Amino acid sequence: MKTFKVDALSDRSREELQGKINAKTKPQGALGHLEEIALRIGLIQGTLTPQLKNPHIVVFAADHGIAREGVSAYPQEVTYQMVMNFLKGGAAINVFCRQHGIAVKVVDAGVNFDFSPDLGLIHAKMAKGTQNFLTEKAMTPQQCAQAMDQGAAIVEDISRQGCNVIGFGEMGIGNTSSASVLMSELCHIPVAECVGRGTGVDAARLRHKIDTLKQAVARHKKSIGTQDIRDVLATFGGFEIVMMCGAMLQAAQLKMVLLVDGFIATTAFLAAYHISPGVKDYAFFCHQSDEHGHARVLQFLEVRPILNLSMRLGEGTAAAVAYPVIQSAVNFLNEMASFESAGVSNKT
Amino acid sequence: MKTFKVDALSDRSREELQGKINAKTKPQGALGHLEEIALRIGLIQGTLTPQLKNPHIVVFAADHGIAREGVSAYPQEVTYQMVMNFLKGGAAINVFCRQHGIAVKVVDAGVNFDFSPDLGLIHAKMAKGTQNFLTEKAMTPQQCAQAMDQGAAIVEDISRQGCNVIGFGEMGIGNTSSASVLMSELCHIPVAECVGRGTGVDAARLRHKIDTLKQAVARHKKSIGTQDIRDVLATFGGFEIVMMCGAMLQAAQLKMVLLVDGFIATTAFLAAYHISPGVKDYAFFCHQSDEHGHARVLQFLEVRPILNLSMRLGEGTAAAVAYPVIQSAVNFLNEMASFESAGVSNKT
Repeated sequence: MKTFKVDALSDRSREELQGKINAKTKPQGALGHLEEIALRIGLIQGTLTPQLKNPHIVVFAADHGIAREGVSAYPQEVTYQMVMNFLKGGAAINVFCRQHGIAVKVVDAGVNFDFSPDLGLIHAKMAKGTQNFLTEKAMTPQQCAQAMDQGAAIVEDISRQGCNVIGFGEMGIGNTSSASVLMSELCHIPVAECVGRGTGVDAARLRHKIDTLKQAVARHKKSIGTQDIRDVLATFGGFEIVMMCGAMLQAAQLKMVLLVDGFIATTAFLAAYHISPGVKDYAFFCHQSDEHGHARVLQFLEVRPILNLSMRLGEGTAAAVAYPVIQSAVNFLNEMASFESAGVSNKT
Repeated sequence: MKTFKVDALSDRSREELQGKINAKTKPQGALGHLEEIALRIGLIQGTLTPQLKNPHIVVFAADHGIAREGVSAYPQEVTYQMVMNFLKGGAAINVFCRQHGIAVKVVDAGVNFDFSPDLGLIHAKMAKGTQNFLTEKAMTPQQCAQAMDQGAAIVEDISRQGCNVIGFGEMGIGNTSSASVLMSELCHIPVAECVGRGTGVDAARLRHKIDTLKQAVARHKKSIGTQDIRDVLATFGGFEIVMMCGAMLQAAQLKMVLLVDGFIATTAFLAAYHISPGVKDYAFFCHQSDEHGHARVLQFLEVRPILNLSMRLGEGTAAAVAYPVIQSAVNFLNEMASFESAGVSNKT
């Protein structure tokens, strides 16, 4: 597996950036969270005049062996059907990306379906879904490393097209189960507290989902006693989650602005953060989802989400909906007049 | 004063709208707050395919006699200087409105400055600022009625240009003082609990601000014992607040989508709501501001803000930053595929 080299942010221009922000015609701090976003994007790009260029959202799709245990409200075929929907432009992620001029790329990371080659899909299928982690490891260490590398390669390719701001979404029936266990292992929180309703299971199925995941954790407890992050990913991961993890690390290494979507994407981020904590400097958490575990994992990461709209859809939709807010932060930094240039009296 | 006639929303198309939302390719409710926004805009416009047309934000500016009591961190001249900044396009509201294609109109509702007639300003000056409500009523009943009518006339004019979504902002050194007292009177909450730091006063000046406003409330206690909303507005209002109140009522009467900005705008809304409760059906609360009283007044109104970005700038900035989220709600309703049209299997 590729070794990622994520630089910590340089603080060289922090004071100058803060000075520029404070000189704008508004009370100090009056643009709140937008000021923090503007400052950090300035630091990421090492400039007083940052720009967001050629924004992309990459949607990784894959199937999950655990779906056979009846942990989702939807049948597995929905994964490939939604991929087709993405490719035809009919899904929520397409609508929001069109609205904001964001390019959407869809990746087959491991969907249980044979897509024809001419669909405009990025073909990176690791297998037709993971193994069922209730009974065996979801993937081999080799598959895990390959998926990570593949995610990185996709981001490198997009970066070469002049993109410097990238978000990641996912689709995969069963993937809140995978994400909940990963969260539990990486945050050391009992799995029952990490499980939510996903696409909307009822109370009975939620109990079944919790029981199933508790069993799965117990089943693998001994073999992953070492807390090797790659082993945790291979045991409980999904191909879309692992690929997203590699993609996030590569994006941070390339000093891109990184948009983190909902619960699943945050879990992929959590894994990336364990591999290279510097990735956090590049990441913007777009939304606090209604999925049960998300608020807690954001707390664990000590990050503040930009939006809180009770969405729980994934696909990258929260990244897309938050994008104009991030653009607003960059715009005020570049376009607002200063007290001096506008001839406005400052605080007495 | 004009009598406003705001119709309550018709529920006629509610079921059909909800059915359309539920048929979209996403789990039911998975777009959270966006679904509620889409539904309500559909009801406002009485259609399954609502459209946001020719969006406007109107910024009402005025000065305040109470500013003489040293309740603000900025000198009064900042009001007219910021108006000039708005007209030149250098303020935050200009930046965000440019970003989203929102037209900005600036109204001189009562600024203590002689603007030349050729600036593109809407001239509606009631006086060169209100009287100091620590010692007398801020305005006469006639001025209050006129300001309300003037706000309504401005909205009527904008509506005739094909605008069906309108936000309101304000600028006026001292206006958080006016708004805090109005909130206190209209919500029956002690004024000390309604006062915040405004543009950023320090602790000593905050205490002075609270003391001053408590005195003002005590001073007028007897004369406004009747709880006549118009008397409350005339006693403690600002011209920009009263004009905004009339503008909001007119916008609701014309069945426009109404974007409520921050603390001051919410206080103007509160007055409009007392005059005609139906206005609430048309209003979207764009942001929960960091200004102290705002969270509480939103609670009082039992409304959920769209954003929570710790902004506290006014000008209509929160309405502008929230606009793309509202547009996203309309877009998903119009553009997303249904389970049927996309050939996606629904919940098992």
